[in-house]
Amino acid sequence: MSDQEKSWTDLPESDQHLRESCISSDDAYQGKFLKLKKDIVSLPDGKETYREYLIHPGAIAILPILDDGRILLERQFRYAVDQAMIEIPAGKLEAGEDPLLCAQRELLEETGYTASSWKFLGRIHPVISYSTEFIDIYQATGLSSGERCLDDGEFLDVFAASIEEMHQWIADGRITDVKTIISIYHLDRNFHQQGNKL
Amino acid sequence: MSDQEKSWTDLPESDQHLRESCISSDDAYQGKFLKLKKDIVSLPDGKETYREYLIHPGAIAILPILDDGRILLERQFRYAVDQAMIEIPAGKLEAGEDPLLCAQRELLEETGYTASSWKFLGRIHPVISYSTEFIDIYQATGLSSGERCLDDGEFLDVFAASIEEMHQWIADGRITDVKTIISIYHLDRNFHQQGNKL
Repeated sequence: MSDQEKSWTDLPESDQHLRESCISSDDAYQGKFLKLKKDIVSLPDGKETYREYLIHPGAIAILPILDDGRILLERQFRYAVDQAMIEIPAGKLEAGEDPLLCAQRELLEETGYTASSWKFLGRIHPVISYSTEFIDIYQATGLSSGERCLDDGEFLDVFAASIEEMHQWIADGRITDVKTIISIYHLDRNFHQQGNKL
Repeated sequence: MSDQEKSWTDLPESDQHLRESCISSDDAYQGKFLKLKKDIVSLPDGKETYREYLIHPGAIAILPILDDGRILLERQFRYAVDQAMIEIPAGKLEAGEDPLLCAQRELLEETGYTASSWKFLGRIHPVISYSTEFIDIYQATGLSSGERCLDDGEFLDVFAASIEEMHQWIADGRITDVKTIISIYHLDRNFHQQGNKL
């Protein structure tokens, strides 16, 4: 066994030999939406370096499954990547907001749907190199349609697709959004583990 | 069928009713690693707003599969999320660098491995709200071990885990890194589609 082929249990239990610790922390930029920090940190070997990163309040995303098994999706223009993206509904947490309540609020605002059943699928970290952001993903079933109520300046299409269409769109590069792909990963795993029942 | 339950083919083919266009673009912050832009944009209804986002050169990630089927992984401290994360190897593109060559360079530097076979698994966009970043994920097989050569100030453990261990660690929240979860999604799909052969 080469050194690289150790298993998890062969690693030191502590991660102390990897940890970086904060020496000083400064606000580098405060925009309308983004807040950037610049910290001086001490590396495991005692040397110093900088870490620049964004402060993010965290977010939620919702995998809404219609009674016929199709997934409710959005098409929304994302300026940073200059594309209209196919995504599951999502939104940022407001200060002190409970993630599940935020998920229920965003699903209603963006799609007009309410759900009778909610299930936590998992937390993801999309930007570990330079943002504190996490996204908590929930599955919503027992959906009832109503009127959506978009925020001012929010423009998006709502539509539904089968799970097989979504696998195909991930394979052909039409879906590249990480929260959307990972929600389908979870759906697949739960489907296999629960004897092919949602 | 409610309006929300349209399928993809029911949507307007053009995304013109969603698009935002740039009115002016300014550098808002130039750090050592991060570059932040602040643009004034025109919304689909003609109103104006700001978009703040980071300029990122793009990145690659590698899913390295050992001959025994296990995956080569890293444990690395990520300051922004204050955790030692379990991840597949990855790195940022240098200016003008070919993504596959970058993947080969990063695999060697971080793990000491070279691979005889490379396959593109897909592109992901991890941060569509505020960064131009994309990550191109490659699968590497036919691995041979050698000496790793970490960048100055880079500290990471290399180890191997089975695919079942990785599914378990995603389920229990030990793996939350998006590129790592999505590489396992692709592996699963290819496994099922190719009659259970890698």
